[in-house]
Amino acid sequence: MELWYTEKQTENYGITAKIENTIHTEQSEFQRIDLIETKQWGKMLVLDGMVMTTDKDEFVYHEMITHLAMNTHANPKRVLVVGGGDGGAIREMLKYPSVETAVLAEIDGRVIELSKEYLPEIAGKLDDPRVDVQVVDGIKYIHDNKNSFDVILVDSTEPVGPAVGLFARDFYQGIFEALKDDGIMVAQSESPWFNSELITRVYKDIASIFPITRYYSASIPTYPSGLWSWTMGSKKYDPLEVDEAKLIEPEGTKYYHKAMHKTVFTLPKFVGELLK
Amino acid sequence: MELWYTEKQTENYGITAKIENTIHTEQSEFQRIDLIETKQWGKMLVLDGMVMTTDKDEFVYHEMITHLAMNTHANPKRVLVVGGGDGGAIREMLKYPSVETAVLAEIDGRVIELSKEYLPEIAGKLDDPRVDVQVVDGIKYIHDNKNSFDVILVDSTEPVGPAVGLFARDFYQGIFEALKDDGIMVAQSESPWFNSELITRVYKDIASIFPITRYYSASIPTYPSGLWSWTMGSKKYDPLEVDEAKLIEPEGTKYYHKAMHKTVFTLPKFVGELLK
Repeated sequence: MELWYTEKQTENYGITAKIENTIHTEQSEFQRIDLIETKQWGKMLVLDGMVMTTDKDEFVYHEMITHLAMNTHANPKRVLVVGGGDGGAIREMLKYPSVETAVLAEIDGRVIELSKEYLPEIAGKLDDPRVDVQVVDGIKYIHDNKNSFDVILVDSTEPVGPAVGLFARDFYQGIFEALKDDGIMVAQSESPWFNSELITRVYKDIASIFPITRYYSASIPTYPSGLWSWTMGSKKYDPLEVDEAKLIEPEGTKYYHKAMHKTVFTLPKFVGELLK
Repeated sequence: MELWYTEKQTENYGITAKIENTIHTEQSEFQRIDLIETKQWGKMLVLDGMVMTTDKDEFVYHEMITHLAMNTHANPKRVLVVGGGDGGAIREMLKYPSVETAVLAEIDGRVIELSKEYLPEIAGKLDDPRVDVQVVDGIKYIHDNKNSFDVILVDSTEPVGPAVGLFARDFYQGIFEALKDDGIMVAQSESPWFNSELITRVYKDIASIFPITRYYSASIPTYPSGLWSWTMGSKKYDPLEVDEAKLIEPEGTKYYHKAMHKTVFTLPKFVGELLK
């Protein structure tokens, strides 16, 4: 018997992957969580039927949500990931020697526990002494921690279910207030092919709050359309104006390297037009 | 009844698209040809079970195989597409006013005829008076036309069946000889995720023939892994050294614009490492 997992990424299109076995399935307080072993991508974490991360291509997402902000900030000491219970963004942030505290604010403790158990390459750094894991609603956490962080990453699921509030203007305003005077935020911003209206709105919202707003994209095979994007809001530092000689080449990356720190903001024409 | 078309892009992974209807199916002398109407991507041309082009995302492939070479060459007058029977690359080449003759050397006349009938937005420019359509084996055509072209594009299918010879070093040597003294070639080079060995070999082969070799990638949702690539061999002009003030902004593009003419060569780290 051949088992295939098919994700309908839209009503009319999807990806399909051959399964070696299903590892774990549960309904947590917040969502359905599935861990499956695929032949093509290794282990896959699926939340509410949507691929969140896989062994083989997770590096793209986790490097790209992290390094543009971290390498733009002059001295990121106290950093936060909202969502991101798999720990991949935390792992990347810890590559900066300046980091003293990295807080993970994840609403679903089961995602953290299952990632630590089944995805140790991704979640393994959650046990680092610099990491403070908070099982908490990110919106509430942001509200309770004003003027606290140098960098905040919004590593959310799709804008359905528990993550809807993480795509709202009020939330970005809260992040602005949770950042210090020279802080930077980055939010994952979905696919330019399938979520163009959302991208336009999120960019406009962040640009209405932060003095510097930048948007970039990268290729992630298992995410809808294969093209993914992030929006950066920054109070002081512009990634396009950093002194390239001061950029760090983070250890063990496979997608990001400092040579792309500025070029990644040059977008395909139709993508750039979403921001106008 | 719901019909879905599934392409296994590897043994273990694929894409699946909801079908409105099947438009045409035939076995030509060279391959199976299917035209289907999908809800997500509009009409889709499928050769031997592999998506070649779709209404909605064809612009990425056709612009990106064409404009890097055409906008790097100082004065492309006589140009050639090997393969590319759908006419999309020819359409993009004709955007350069310097072009006097654009030859299409496609082995399968049925692909040309069906594209003209069912994909007029892509193939419509094949009737332009500057276009010379040759139904011919591209390898033979190259051999018979030495020192003839300013730009040659290798717009091949996957390296199976009729296209195997279009990925061989001998063929690239033939292209070198078919180009004039300042000529440029670009060959489609598959997915960095799924075809890494092929990419390394093709790059090495082209670099052993041409003084300047460059490699670039772009995001195409319906192609395997969503990340696609091209290899450029050039006798004289380096795309990284062109005077940006002299670049043309080709009309009606949706992916390429001259702002990305140099940045597109900055690769994801793991992709750049395939070329070492």
